[in-house]
Amino acid sequence: MIKAGIIGSTGYAGQEIVRLLLGHKDVEIAWYGSRSYIDKKYYEVYQNMFQLVEASCLDDNMEELSEKVDVIFTATPQGLCGSLVNEEILSKVKIIDLSADFRIKDVKVYEDWYKIKHQSPEYIEEAVYGLCEINREKIKGARLIANPGCYPTCSTLSIYPMMKEGLIDGNTVIIDAKSGTSGAGRGAKLDNLYCEVNENIKAYGVATHRHTPEIEEQLSYAAGYPVCINFTPHLVPMNRGILVTAYASLKKEVSYEEVKAVYDQYYAKERFVRVLDKDVCPQTRWVEGSNFVDVNFKIDPRTNRIIMMGAMDNLVKGAAGQAVQNMNLLFGFEESEGLLMAPVFP
Amino acid sequence: MIKAGIIGSTGYAGQEIVRLLLGHKDVEIAWYGSRSYIDKKYYEVYQNMFQLVEASCLDDNMEELSEKVDVIFTATPQGLCGSLVNEEILSKVKIIDLSADFRIKDVKVYEDWYKIKHQSPEYIEEAVYGLCEINREKIKGARLIANPGCYPTCSTLSIYPMMKEGLIDGNTVIIDAKSGTSGAGRGAKLDNLYCEVNENIKAYGVATHRHTPEIEEQLSYAAGYPVCINFTPHLVPMNRGILVTAYASLKKEVSYEEVKAVYDQYYAKERFVRVLDKDVCPQTRWVEGSNFVDVNFKIDPRTNRIIMMGAMDNLVKGAAGQAVQNMNLLFGFEESEGLLMAPVFP
Amino acid sequence: MIKAGIIGSTGYAGQEIVRLLLGHKDVEIAWYGSRSYIDKKYYEVYQNMFQLVEASCLDDNMEELSEKVDVIFTATPQGLCGSLVNEEILSKVKIIDLSADFRIKDVKVYEDWYKIKHQSPEYIEEAVYGLCEINREKIKGARLIANPGCYPTCSTLSIYPMMKEGLIDGNTVIIDAKSGTSGAGRGAKLDNLYCEVNENIKAYGVATHRHTPEIEEQLSYAAGYPVCINFTPHLVPMNRGILVTAYASLKKEVSYEEVKAVYDQYYAKERFVRVLDKDVCPQTRWVEGSNFVDVNFKIDPRTNRIIMMGAMDNLVKGAAGQAVQNMNLLFGFEESEGLLMAPVFP
Amino acid sequence: MIKAGIIGSTGYAGQEIVRLLLGHKDVEIAWYGSRSYIDKKYYEVYQNMFQLVEASCLDDNMEELSEKVDVIFTATPQGLCGSLVNEEILSKVKIIDLSADFRIKDVKVYEDWYKIKHQSPEYIEEAVYGLCEINREKIKGARLIANPGCYPTCSTLSIYPMMKEGLIDGNTVIIDAKSGTSGAGRGAKLDNLYCEVNENIKAYGVATHRHTPEIEEQLSYAAGYPVCINFTPHLVPMNRGILVTAYASLKKEVSYEEVKAVYDQYYAKERFVRVLDKDVCPQTRWVEGSNFVDVNFKIDPRTNRIIMMGAMDNLVKGAAGQAVQNMNLLFGFEESEGLLMAPVFP
Repeated sequence: MIKAGIIGSTGYAGQEIVRLLLGHKDVEIAWYGSRSYIDKKYYEVYQNMFQLVEASCLDDNMEELSEKVDVIFTATPQGLCGSLVNEEILSKVKIIDLSADFRIKDVKVYEDWYKIKHQSPEYIEEAVYGLCEINREKIKGARLIANPGCYPTCSTLSIYPMMKEGLIDGNTVIIDAKSGTSGAGRGAKLDNLYCEVNENIKAYGVATHRHTPEIEEQLSYAAGYPVCINFTPHLVPMNRGILVTAYASLKKEVSYEEVKAVYDQYYAKERFVRVLDKDVCPQTRWVEGSNFVDVNFKIDPRTNRIIMMGAMDNLVKGAAGQAVQNMNLLFGFEESEGLLMAPVFP
Repeated sequence: MIKAGIIGSTGYAGQEIVRLLLGHKDVEIAWYGSRSYIDKKYYEVYQNMFQLVEASCLDDNMEELSEKVDVIFTATPQGLCGSLVNEEILSKVKIIDLSADFRIKDVKVYEDWYKIKHQSPEYIEEAVYGLCEINREKIKGARLIANPGCYPTCSTLSIYPMMKEGLIDGNTVIIDAKSGTSGAGRGAKLDNLYCEVNENIKAYGVATHRHTPEIEEQLSYAAGYPVCINFTPHLVPMNRGILVTAYASLKKEVSYEEVKAVYDQYYAKERFVRVLDKDVCPQTRWVEGSNFVDVNFKIDPRTNRIIMMGAMDNLVKGAAGQAVQNMNLLFGFEESEGLLMAPVFP
Repeated sequence: MIKAGIIGSTGYAGQEIVRLLLGHKDVEIAWYGSRSYIDKKYYEVYQNMFQLVEASCLDDNMEELSEKVDVIFTATPQGLCGSLVNEEILSKVKIIDLSADFRIKDVKVYEDWYKIKHQSPEYIEEAVYGLCEINREKIKGARLIANPGCYPTCSTLSIYPMMKEGLIDGNTVIIDAKSGTSGAGRGAKLDNLYCEVNENIKAYGVATHRHTPEIEEQLSYAAGYPVCINFTPHLVPMNRGILVTAYASLKKEVSYEEVKAVYDQYYAKERFVRVLDKDVCPQTRWVEGSNFVDVNFKIDPRTNRIIMMGAMDNLVKGAAGQAVQNMNLLFGFEESEGLLMAPVFP
Repeated sequence: MIKAGIIGSTGYAGQEIVRLLLGHKDVEIAWYGSRSYIDKKYYEVYQNMFQLVEASCLDDNMEELSEKVDVIFTATPQGLCGSLVNEEILSKVKIIDLSADFRIKDVKVYEDWYKIKHQSPEYIEEAVYGLCEINREKIKGARLIANPGCYPTCSTLSIYPMMKEGLIDGNTVIIDAKSGTSGAGRGAKLDNLYCEVNENIKAYGVATHRHTPEIEEQLSYAAGYPVCINFTPHLVPMNRGILVTAYASLKKEVSYEEVKAVYDQYYAKERFVRVLDKDVCPQTRWVEGSNFVDVNFKIDPRTNRIIMMGAMDNLVKGAAGQAVQNMNLLFGFEESEGLLMAPVFP
């Protein structure tokens, strides 16, 4: 039994970590960090946790925390984790950072896109990008995990096999993504009000969204050359879920069976990536509440392009679930421990 | 490890039983019954079950089923279970019927409200009404469980303590209930289309809904005299959840503390009924995906009435979850086994 | 052609006044008041008005406004209109106040429920409660209109004929109301975020909602004696719409035909109140975007109660539409001018 | 005053024609055709029309209809209009066909994509594609209008100026489109049930959707060469609205101002196409219930692509509104008559 602390436990992703860890047999939550709700009962912030969590919220003291727990999750805005980590802390505790602070290896790219001065660039190199299906072995030995972004997780997993096998031209990749509203966080902003989101769909951050360089970095590793893409996120009137529809030009003629074999080669043994049957399109409802990513593809011979699709729950595989999966790898638990719940439908 | 069969496994309630049993350590599903989808892979009907359920759907053969399993769930329209049970079957297998066939003790009342001739009235007396918090001991020894309706579960649990203690006048009870759309089932009907339900609220079955006599029967047991009530259900544009707002005249002046003590007396030790803190109103979002019923009340001294409220997930505590809870009681498992997941929010 | 000014034009109700007046042939909007967005283009706040409204937002200067326009709509929080009106202003301009400041005749009741000191109680007596179907003649000659609240409009119109004809016992009235989220306004509050409202229903303000005394006052006028009721509002995951389900004990046995005749007596000639056919329940989707209130009832002989139902669009008949209807009466326009659009479905 | 007949008046698009024509000063609806509801009161099918439409539904008799009305709208499945038109009918009455029967000039392409044998290919040449902003003059003199599909309207208008001016490479166009559920029609299908659509997003018809050749044909006219594109529609949990996000490679370096000038050249004088301000993304909520198409674009110098976006109400500009706009052109009415209502928000 290990102990976990959560900094930022009252955001949507933080709360999802709580939900998942309550069902994890090897972990106990020892610290519910929340600067906004210090001393407030956690269940008063999230009434679903009534009679399940008795603890009150605590401040975000990483020093103290590193003494008391074995793993810290930082589910906080960009910049916070980067400003808190140091050698002493990393020597005592594993850190799984759900922010973008350690995801991008080139600190200049990070600073350009996030408009933040990085406070601890010396740990970027060491940090392991926690996309478990790709970096499983590296994760096991890490001290600091950069938990991937929601869009990058779904985008990368959807495209990875084709890119890695050199079947598509990396610079033709266009990713059109759609996300539920929990991705926008629990901040009280006009744009996230019910009446503003409901009965509406819009693109946002067109050609400027911060997840773009993160996706490009991962796809570039797969391609073996620098890849420059278009990424357009959209806000969908639903609570959870990300759907990625990605387009790329094929570098040679391929059959359905060949491409299916490629996807199976990478994912057939993966518990949390499901390659769907032919012509079955991923849908967010089929993964809701679970750690699955459903992927599939369609070859369009008319345009010589492939359409690659992925669906996942942005709060689970796109945030808290992947964080728990990383934790399981870090501590040698069963990788799927606490993550085996079936998707909830409807 | 016992074996379970589900007749009607491709309705929303049937699928929810599947979801819950997949997380239950003592049960294996041996029969996915579905007359509409015979020989079709279960996961082709419910894509969330891809790679989780390999079985195909089977016909509704209760004879054969009774040889192969230890418990049968019938998640089927009214009349089906009543037409299938017989002494031989009941001697071999436990039956948990999610339809209304065995809920109402007076067969005439059943036939009047349901406009169906009961096919096996001889088993009505024996059947135990599976509202676990009220009938726990009787359930343990039963062969045939009448799993309560969704509205009756939430209504009865919200009102029961006040009625049992004689604090309210039974004939002043008015129940105004609101349900998510999964309660209407998965039938392809115009009224349940997205565009017809979305951005809408309506009452239905006003003064004629079939759950009325079921609620009245349970409240009458609690009151000790025959109770006649108003019950009005409403359809809400959401997938899951039932909210009950019930009104009744107080028979004497009572304080908040006195009433709170009454609720605690009945529910403080109950795992799945949560009496909320003062002035916290039950909300369906806080119980979604879980087996909890959240209840609370408000005394209105101006009108000398009490407003009693309850919220639950209609597919869990209102159907599949309660069915599993009943199964746990029947087989001597931990009552909460397979039902301890925290509510999913948002 | 008259000129109108709107104080609070960037709230949801204020914007709905704009939408309706754009389609009104006798009115021009001369002042878009909005303290929060001074000097900002109106269409930048409400992008639906792009190329339809060129004006920028102005401060809330009622003195200046009274020189420039013929009618002022105050779509503002409680207390503001009361703090601004005076004899000089009222001598120059008609005021239609969408807040509660002048709705309740007993200033003490207002101050008790709203926890506000009334700044101009001397105008309460003069103000006319702008429920057009009930107070049509008085409205025509008024200087100051108290535009009714959304819940009171729907509740009163649903119950009025039964109360006025003495067919129900006023003190048995229980109103269970359900509202879309636009009723909560456009303030950036956590409780109104998409993820908090979506997939949820809850009661709020139980036994304490401020519309209670307003409804009681109107029902008391109808009854001829003081009426004390229960009123419970609920928040529904939809943008627009209010549904009222009201219960009362019948004072004598009545048939469907008798009650229908009573409703027709009051509403058959009313353009905006539609008494539905037998057994057709009001639904909010059938009135969305329009000024209609759909009403109907069901007699329950088992309990000797009548269930009275009403559905309307909270932003139209419940706010801006009724305000325009009042304006039409004040200025001698056709009462339905600008309000004849059919409901938008789906 | 002309008379209109609607074949298929009880589908969502048909009902929207009814709604719009009720607010049109020069048209009277003389025939509510609906094979499914013959002799049923129209308002019983669409309760929003209670007291607004007294007529009953009639059969789809085009012969008889052509004697009685001046214009026929066919809001029917593919194949019906094509099977009904003949010279005699066309000599008596104008036809505005909302199906795809006469949209595609190459009958083989139509038959390949729609899997239907065209019953009257002899009228394809004559039929005018009713995209008013592009084909205004031709429409005025037509007998038979092929009212554009919803996706093609939004896609073509979003991309047209760039294609016509030769600024983009036609064969790099990728259209990722998102639609509300009313686009799926009012048929009682499992896939369109509330619980199946709500809290979900999915692509469908990937690389095979029938609107693809229609879009390609229109874009090819603009380009001056045959264009082959990718088009992927998605189903969004909302009632109304289409959003198009289109990608294309720029043929030369262009500035924001240059592209803005191109869009303004085509649309500045158009009443129903609004080119938004810089960096304002089209959103479906801002056009709901109206005939507007909001368009905008973003240049991405990193990838040398342009992202073109458009939002409209699929039932208005994407179906019934455009049909009415075509009717206005056909009969010499003001083009915007009956279509000037402001968008309804929220």
